[in-house]
Amino acid sequence: MIIMNGKLIGIGVGPGDAELLTIKALNVLKNVDVICAPRSADSKPSLALSIVQGFLDERDDNYEILEPLFPMIEDETLLREHWDNAAVLISDKLRQGMDMAFVTLGDPTIYSTFSYVSKRIEDRGFEVEIVPGITSFTGCAATAGISLGEKDEIIVIVPKVDERLERILEYGDTFVVMKTSRHSDTLEKIVHQDSRDKDVISVQNCGLEDEIISNGFIKDKKYLSTTILKFKNEK
Amino acid sequence: MIIMNGKLIGIGVGPGDAELLTIKALNVLKNVDVICAPRSADSKPSLALSIVQGFLDERDDNYEILEPLFPMIEDETLLREHWDNAAVLISDKLRQGMDMAFVTLGDPTIYSTFSYVSKRIEDRGFEVEIVPGITSFTGCAATAGISLGEKDEIIVIVPKVDERLERILEYGDTFVVMKTSRHSDTLEKIVHQDSRDKDVISVQNCGLEDEIISNGFIKDKKYLSTTILKFKNEK
Repeated sequence: MIIMNGKLIGIGVGPGDAELLTIKALNVLKNVDVICAPRSADSKPSLALSIVQGFLDERDDNYEILEPLFPMIEDETLLREHWDNAAVLISDKLRQGMDMAFVTLGDPTIYSTFSYVSKRIEDRGFEVEIVPGITSFTGCAATAGISLGEKDEIIVIVPKVDERLERILEYGDTFVVMKTSRHSDTLEKIVHQDSRDKDVISVQNCGLEDEIISNGFIKDKKYLSTTILKFKNEK
Repeated sequence: MIIMNGKLIGIGVGPGDAELLTIKALNVLKNVDVICAPRSADSKPSLALSIVQGFLDERDDNYEILEPLFPMIEDETLLREHWDNAAVLISDKLRQGMDMAFVTLGDPTIYSTFSYVSKRIEDRGFEVEIVPGITSFTGCAATAGISLGEKDEIIVIVPKVDERLERILEYGDTFVVMKTSRHSDTLEKIVHQDSRDKDVISVQNCGLEDEIISNGFIKDKKYLSTTILKFKNEK
């Protein structure tokens, strides 16, 4: 008997609210053989998994859950080891003909660990598909009730507060700056050098139950925080 | 009898595939009293409406459809007139206690006409809510099977090919350039000035049935086209 390989499907589960999953994502989650949900620590449950858990609980058939460890570390060599290990575990299931959904916060094409894993799976000759998700920044903008871009405005997504942000600042209109909480003072300093009128909106724990949206820079240091800078052009 | 005002709900319907609506968007569409779907010409049906039509057909209760005209013109004064007119029509329904979903392609916070209308509705004292949608660029990236950003990469969304794109180019890593078809030659010229290695992916009619994804610049001139530029950094 020949077993057809299963495929890997990257699923963006959105910023936190389970209702922000797409209908397509839901259909995949209800039908795949395996759900892969990376955890950042052995003791920590996967946030992406917890978002979709309610839908999985409605399934009355059997499915497996795979929870590879992807620690939040900077060491590239060690990270690669974790991705390689995950790729081995995933390939093993696909080779058995099982289809697998890899759940990831936000969207799989925007700063997601999924991209490192999917490359490895494609290199091994398996089929990979992506189901897009609501990004954290459109989720934040929707909750804050603001638009990110209108007409000719340029939107810039910056994953880190550093000198590259400083250099690009004058060339864009809206900036979505991620992981700002630990660098709030630096961000404030950089932004104040720009003389344009601006709105500063900070969102902590976007899409989660304890979401906080406030004007101005963030003063306490929670992990999930995004700052939206909107510069007003004189026209 | 006091009638409570209805609220306006901006719904991102995503790039074209009806399955890319969120569960939340679907729930709203099945329950509101009015669907507002702007058209660009009297003779043209609304693309956003056609995406959700299948879900509306499943409703067995009554709802209204409002199709204000938002022509694709550059004249600001004339555009404002159309937005003002739409705001009058919408307010009238809200004042009767009707909830209204305003359907818009992609996401309501990213270059959407919804933002101009929602401002006017808020100014009139009505409640406005936003349900985020899958953006055209994450939809394109998912179909093309590429990631838009990894690690420290800066993503830039540019709605127009012009000198501002030229100026910002060296400061970002991934560029999503919209409406590129009519400006493909200019875009090619601008991009070739940058000596970094790059991938160029063009997507036409993203998310629609006749979607085309190709490497390199677009040579024919369809309306809905997006070019993704990925510069490779030496590191």
